[in-house]
Amino acid sequence: MTPHMPREHRQRHAPPGEVPPMSAEDVAAIEAVLGYEFADKSLVELALTHGSFYFPYRPGDTYERLEYLGDGVLTCLMSREVFRNYRTLPPGPLTRLRAANVDTEKLARVAIDRGLHRFLRHKAPKLQDQIYSFIEEMRKYPVHSNGLLDPPKVLCDIVESLIGAIYWDSNFDQEEVWRVFRTLADPLIGLETLGKHPVTELFEFCQKTHRGVKFVKDEWDKSLKVEVLIDGELVASATYGQKKEIAQNRAAKAALDKLKETLGQTQSESASADVSEALDELDIAGTLKCQ
Amino acid sequence: MTPHMPREHRQRHAPPGEVPPMSAEDVAAIEAVLGYEFADKSLVELALTHGSFYFPYRPGDTYERLEYLGDGVLTCLMSREVFRNYRTLPPGPLTRLRAANVDTEKLARVAIDRGLHRFLRHKAPKLQDQIYSFIEEMRKYPVHSNGLLDPPKVLCDIVESLIGAIYWDSNFDQEEVWRVFRTLADPLIGLETLGKHPVTELFEFCQKTHRGVKFVKDEWDKSLKVEVLIDGELVASATYGQKKEIAQNRAAKAALDKLKETLGQTQSESASADVSEALDELDIAGTLKCQ
Repeated sequence: MTPHMPREHRQRHAPPGEVPPMSAEDVAAIEAVLGYEFADKSLVELALTHGSFYFPYRPGDTYERLEYLGDGVLTCLMSREVFRNYRTLPPGPLTRLRAANVDTEKLARVAIDRGLHRFLRHKAPKLQDQIYSFIEEMRKYPVHSNGLLDPPKVLCDIVESLIGAIYWDSNFDQEEVWRVFRTLADPLIGLETLGKHPVTELFEFCQKTHRGVKFVKDEWDKSLKVEVLIDGELVASATYGQKKEIAQNRAAKAALDKLKETLGQTQSESASADVSEALDELDIAGTLKCQ
Repeated sequence: MTPHMPREHRQRHAPPGEVPPMSAEDVAAIEAVLGYEFADKSLVELALTHGSFYFPYRPGDTYERLEYLGDGVLTCLMSREVFRNYRTLPPGPLTRLRAANVDTEKLARVAIDRGLHRFLRHKAPKLQDQIYSFIEEMRKYPVHSNGLLDPPKVLCDIVESLIGAIYWDSNFDQEEVWRVFRTLADPLIGLETLGKHPVTELFEFCQKTHRGVKFVKDEWDKSLKVEVLIDGELVASATYGQKKEIAQNRAAKAALDKLKETLGQTQSESASADVSEALDELDIAGTLKCQ
């Protein structure tokens, strides 16, 4: 009962000596991080093998199928966790809580925090740069950046594939999977640490303070710059490579910072009750700090 | 350990006699359909109570939270099922197979086929009309319409909420949930019965036969008509209330039918090998029937 070709078969295709298998020491180190001992040790290697590792590409020898399985079981277990912990919360916030704990950034942070990225088997030099740059950036946000960072998907993938491997190896023991994940992902994001996306926050703030907000993106501009207009006035802008969503989130965050600064200065004197209240909420949400 | 207020408490708010609880006969009939006996019978009533049933709305007394839980466990179990059944299939088709078995139409069909819709508790007359019209329409497609129908979400919801109720009631016994769902949803959609969405099929067909295809929607036209242009020529169009996606699927299907008819007539004489091959594939996909 293995989800892939047996190791002997897989290795027959690789020139001898060129693609060494994962060492027993590495397997043991990964098992120690997970707190789980695999019956089928070859699953550890498979769960950490990226598509770029073999040339030509060998679809049966990458973590992709295990990642798919891991994603499924994590969705279920996080649904159950928030369902149990928040007995009266409606489905909307339950879904946001579940998503926050199994999204790309949260799982990428888990991979880094537990050192799992050191065992990734790949042959894509660009990946390494992306990982280093994410490690540097993620330190700025203790819990989650809420859409301001662009975490390398591969980091999330290997957490999901290891979880999928445990689900398979343990003969689908969801309690064992949960025990491992609960420890790996500690602390889970709860209602009190769940941040808001800056775009949502900006819209809510502007609605509360009766301001009109508009995001503008010049489709002809190759840099994909996103601008934020508030009451028709340019307040902030951001660019981020080819990813419009991240540029938009960063522009919204910059606009919130600016609003906060400008309004904060006049709050005690002339700001309306609406503005004061909206500013207080921004503080509570923890996304903005008083200057 | 119940996910909602106990029945006595819930009923205190309802005028006596006006909102009768689900009868013991109905509960037993539903248990018989599911092949599962609930420890907490009040979950059956909860899983079948739509938001419209109580006025004013009582968020703790609707199936919404159970539906959320059921969705999570079904995602996991269908992932596992296709992962086990298709040992070498890549994640893309695995995801399509999973989605096909837990999507709104598949689960709505399950609700109708098993007669679960008869137990739905709601006060929204429009829902009843939508259900009747879906029952009539679904008969035209023995397995799945692949985007041509607009199934009432409430039908899918009650299957998910009953599954969530079993997951909770059985103290999270995924094997018990799977046993129930496997029987309820029989036959599951497999690779051999997995249809293609007409839009995908039309794009693939046109690519293979070197035709340019374009969907056009007049944003000023309130009827939301979608037109299909092939090599710049209007071939088909469709409208569907306010749902553009369904109009687009139906327009694509109409265009495929027309292409099939036109090309089929000349196939044996003058059509190129590309066209013959593409036509054969359309037959295999089972979406179109020879005229």
